[in-house]
Amino acid sequence: MAAHQVNQDRLWQSLLDMAKIGPGVAGGNRRLALTEEDRQGRDLFCAWAKAAGCAVTVDGMGNIFARRAGRKPAASPVLTGSHLDTQPTGGRFDGVYGVLAGLEVVRSLNDRKLETARPVEVVVWTNEEGSRFQPAMVGSGVFSGRFTLEEGYGQADADGVRLGDALEKIGYKGAAKAGPRPIHSYLEAHIEQGPILEAERKTIGIVSGIQGVKWFKARVTGMNSHAGTTPMEVRRDPLVGAARMVQAVDRITRATRPDCVGTVGEFKVGPGSINVINAEVRFSIDLRCPDGGVLRELEAKVRAACGEIAQEAGLSLQLDEIWYSEPTEFDAKVVQTIAQAAGQAGYPARRIVSGAGHDAKHLAEICPTGMIFIPCENGISHNEAENITPEQAGAGANVLLNSVLTLANEE
Amino acid sequence: MAAHQVNQDRLWQSLLDMAKIGPGVAGGNRRLALTEEDRQGRDLFCAWAKAAGCAVTVDGMGNIFARRAGRKPAASPVLTGSHLDTQPTGGRFDGVYGVLAGLEVVRSLNDRKLETARPVEVVVWTNEEGSRFQPAMVGSGVFSGRFTLEEGYGQADADGVRLGDALEKIGYKGAAKAGPRPIHSYLEAHIEQGPILEAERKTIGIVSGIQGVKWFKARVTGMNSHAGTTPMEVRRDPLVGAARMVQAVDRITRATRPDCVGTVGEFKVGPGSINVINAEVRFSIDLRCPDGGVLRELEAKVRAACGEIAQEAGLSLQLDEIWYSEPTEFDAKVVQTIAQAAGQAGYPARRIVSGAGHDAKHLAEICPTGMIFIPCENGISHNEAENITPEQAGAGANVLLNSVLTLANEE
Repeated sequence: MAAHQVNQDRLWQSLLDMAKIGPGVAGGNRRLALTEEDRQGRDLFCAWAKAAGCAVTVDGMGNIFARRAGRKPAASPVLTGSHLDTQPTGGRFDGVYGVLAGLEVVRSLNDRKLETARPVEVVVWTNEEGSRFQPAMVGSGVFSGRFTLEEGYGQADADGVRLGDALEKIGYKGAAKAGPRPIHSYLEAHIEQGPILEAERKTIGIVSGIQGVKWFKARVTGMNSHAGTTPMEVRRDPLVGAARMVQAVDRITRATRPDCVGTVGEFKVGPGSINVINAEVRFSIDLRCPDGGVLRELEAKVRAACGEIAQEAGLSLQLDEIWYSEPTEFDAKVVQTIAQAAGQAGYPARRIVSGAGHDAKHLAEICPTGMIFIPCENGISHNEAENITPEQAGAGANVLLNSVLTLANEE
Repeated sequence: MAAHQVNQDRLWQSLLDMAKIGPGVAGGNRRLALTEEDRQGRDLFCAWAKAAGCAVTVDGMGNIFARRAGRKPAASPVLTGSHLDTQPTGGRFDGVYGVLAGLEVVRSLNDRKLETARPVEVVVWTNEEGSRFQPAMVGSGVFSGRFTLEEGYGQADADGVRLGDALEKIGYKGAAKAGPRPIHSYLEAHIEQGPILEAERKTIGIVSGIQGVKWFKARVTGMNSHAGTTPMEVRRDPLVGAARMVQAVDRITRATRPDCVGTVGEFKVGPGSINVINAEVRFSIDLRCPDGGVLRELEAKVRAACGEIAQEAGLSLQLDEIWYSEPTEFDAKVVQTIAQAAGQAGYPARRIVSGAGHDAKHLAEICPTGMIFIPCENGISHNEAENITPEQAGAGANVLLNSVLTLANEE
């Protein structure tokens, strides 16, 4: 089969048009879930999808499905998409790219009058970012059966507004049943949100899975005293101990496996005065690895090292796990389909594990799933400076188009 | 000369009575400089001093001098005292002890009808703490000529009230000239504010000087990125670098000399989010040593180590000195006088360098000066939990009494 190509200029123009809704202050976007801006973005997508001949349905969680019919109406569809909501100071491409690349696939199929055996549906998932309502990825979570509809509706924002009410207010509490239904396969195109593809000059990332993530909160307590009058040998300085723990996280992660990452992001000292030895330090640890067993091993080594440091320094340490997201391995056949599409188009590509979570994580629980990454400028995301080129956008959509064609023509 | 003793019970009762003015919320005191509480404390001291037969004068900076006449009225006086103002959540003894130990010396001299050749003056210095008006130790600073009277008056508190106006408002802008005059010698009794004497079971600290202090502010900047998607080998994490610098300060200080201390107290990361590699870390460094040359050497080693860490990790480092207080060496003869008084009384004593600043630092610039330390419970100070025993208070006052007697009878 010869490789088909999307209309790159049309895709790029759609990305720019969508970015006009809920503009940020620095060239990016602020289109928080279930706000008026989100409604406008959804309306624009629905109008475009209808203009492309799709049947649009909305489920009870506000997930939007734009369906292009197949030759076999009863066959389970190939689903592709992502989300339109953004971070408070978000970029123009995170999520939006996957939705509009999906729409561009439908438009390109129309241009070429290409029929598929299975229906193709482009999906917009509700509240992927989790900026307004926690947890994140709740629309796909309800669709996959991970959360109940009631759990989805019950989330409240900082003002106490419940997700269910916000959904109703913007007119996107749909009639379709929210929950699992037969899906042949799910594909999600997304910007990498990291620096690997750009650094290695790869056009396409063939995503093999999503890292497992464990979050911890640590509290180190020592002895608060006067910086001028307390001799070094009697000190129990929690900052000196916590500093060793920060290094231990970094050192142990590097030594464990090249695909592990470990980060201390939050870090607060108390009382934090120039001439006072602190009483306590609180910090977070974020550990990730594509392999659940290795992640547990990494955790055990970090715990042992931190415990040893605390004991040596006469400090007390409390280290609690606050969140765990198990690793996801994508479907081998779907991954292979994406790899073939990239190869056919002649794009430099590599296998990559997603460091961030995506709706595809939930979909992988109910159907064969894969993701296509494209590079983003300097690996920057969740930031108004987020950027890609029209060529990068087009390449990812080309791979998506050919992958969809393959999957939608499977028996 | 046989050792004289003060009336320990009377001293203790005076300490408890003074602590009733401006009580804290946890057993300590809140008597900020030049507030109504400070006025009441000053009034009580003046009343006690007059009752003890002293002539009380107040200088233009609000420093109070209670003078007990000597046989030679024209001879320069022996001066002793400290301050009555406290930290916002301060203790009952920091400063107050030195003032009331001085008053107790006068009372004891009266009890025994002991004449001295030189006059003895008990002094209350204005705004030692620097909690309401910065800088600290401004009353003694103007007295020593370190600051001009205008500089002293010009300080404003957080509400914009100037020190000169606050002084006038509480009625303590005195008529006496504020500035240097001939002083034979200055003695200041004070709680240690550190753990050394208690740990070594010493009753008296014979203070040989005050540490030199250098304060620095450091800013380490790296590359802000996503904790999940940024491989370890491309990271430039300023927290990992700053953590190594914290340890370098600790390690280098310990290796330099046992009487050096080095502390990182302030420490702030930005943006400080659980799944984000930070963009920058800002922290303070407080280095102290009794020897100015060693302090400079310590600084050089810390600067070199931090610079090397930054370079290795691809971080940028800005390290600025923001304050320097040179070391003070007290007068050898005065120190010897104190040592003899302690020895005569049979008190376990040791030489000690003050880690904190005191009014004695300014006085040492214009006259032979020394300090007497007594232990405090767990080394805790600048805290409402600050505590001493009546016996500890009495012992320090006994050493002060006998030292004053020696110095006030010198030619």
